[in-house]
Amino acid sequence: MLSHSGNVFVLSAPSGTGKSTLARQLVKQVTDLNFSVSFTTRRPRPGEVDGRDYFFVDDATFDRMVAEDGFVEWVSVYERRYGTGKAWIQEQLASGTDILLDIESKGARQVHKAIPDAVMVFLLPPSSGELASRLRGRGDESEEQVRIRLDYARHELSQFDSYDYLVVNDTVDQAYRKLESIIIATRCRRERMGKTAQRILESF
Amino acid sequence: MLSHSGNVFVLSAPSGTGKSTLARQLVKQVTDLNFSVSFTTRRPRPGEVDGRDYFFVDDATFDRMVAEDGFVEWVSVYERRYGTGKAWIQEQLASGTDILLDIESKGARQVHKAIPDAVMVFLLPPSSGELASRLRGRGDESEEQVRIRLDYARHELSQFDSYDYLVVNDTVDQAYRKLESIIIATRCRRERMGKTAQRILESF
Repeated sequence: MLSHSGNVFVLSAPSGTGKSTLARQLVKQVTDLNFSVSFTTRRPRPGEVDGRDYFFVDDATFDRMVAEDGFVEWVSVYERRYGTGKAWIQEQLASGTDILLDIESKGARQVHKAIPDAVMVFLLPPSSGELASRLRGRGDESEEQVRIRLDYARHELSQFDSYDYLVVNDTVDQAYRKLESIIIATRCRRERMGKTAQRILESF
Repeated sequence: MLSHSGNVFVLSAPSGTGKSTLARQLVKQVTDLNFSVSFTTRRPRPGEVDGRDYFFVDDATFDRMVAEDGFVEWVSVYERRYGTGKAWIQEQLASGTDILLDIESKGARQVHKAIPDAVMVFLLPPSSGELASRLRGRGDESEEQVRIRLDYARHELSQFDSYDYLVVNDTVDQAYRKLESIIIATRCRRERMGKTAQRILESF
C-alpha cells in the first residue's frame, strides 16, 4: 500500500463510452490533477514523448520491474506490456498532486488492491443501444467486433458494485461536471482537510 | 433511523462563518434540493409564512411531538423551541427530494444519530482573526459577545472530526462551488446510482 497526501482517481468505462475524452478534459481544466504516465514496452509513435505520453522501456526493464513488484497494475496486450509504476505514482502523490488513471476495468481492480483509498469512478453508457451506435459510429469496426465489445461491456457493467461513484455519460457536459464535482468533493473530505482544519483551530 | 431515497445534507458552522448565505444560494441554484422547514414555538415575524419559513406550533403541540419522538433534533433557545420533524423529512426524502439542514453543531450531531447516512458538512472560517472581524463587522454585537462567540467557535471547530466534509469559507464563490460539488458527487455515489446502473445493465 502506498502512503500519500494526494488523491488517486481511477476512471474506468466500457470501450466507446467516452472515457478518454472526459479524462483529457479533466486533466486540462482541473488544477493539480495529472495523468498517470504508464510504462510500456511498445515503441514510441511519431510525436510521442518519453515521460509525457509513456515511459518507453525495453522488455528486460519491464521484466525487472514486474519481478521487483514495481507496478501498481500491469497488463499484456498483443505482446506489448503496459504498467503503472509504483515509485512514480508515489512521487507525484507525495508532492500533493492528484493522479488520474484512465484505465480498463481489470487494471482498475488491481489499483484498488494496491491503493485501497483510491477513488474508483465508473463511467456508464446511457444504454446498450446508445453504446452500440457510438461503436458503429467510429466506422472502423466490424459488426463482429462491435458484438464482442458489447458483450465485454455487459461484463464490465455487471461489476459496478466495486466502484465508489457511477456517472452516466448521457451528455459530455453533464458527465464532465459530475466527474469534476467528484474530484472537488474528494479534496474536501475530512481525511484530506484535517491538517487545514487543525491549523485553523490553532489560530483560535 | 429513517429509510429514504433522497439525501440529507447537514451544513453546520460557527456563527459568523457565512453558512446561511451559502445555504440559501444552494437551495436556489441546485435542482431538487430543499431546505428543511423547522417547527417552532415562537410567533411568526411579519412576512414569515407558515409551512415555508417554519411550521408555527403551540407549546402543547411541540410537547406532544417531543413525547412521540417526532423530532430528528430539537433545541430550546430563550424559551422558544425549534425542531426538525421526522415525518416531514421522511415525506420529502421518499419523494426523492434532497434536504439541506442549516443547523448549529449540537443539532447536527443529533441529526447524525437519527440519520447515520446524512452527509455532514462543516464550514470553517479561514482563521480566528477573520471570524472576529466578520463578527465585529456586523456592528450589532458588543466585544463581550464577540469574545463569547469566538470561544464557542473554537469549541465547535474542535469537533471537526465528526463531519464528512470540511469546507473553508475563504471566498463565497469558492466555498459555494465546493458545497455544490459535494451535493453533485453524493448524488453520483454507487449506493444512490445502483438502480440506474442496474437498469442500464439490463439493457444489454
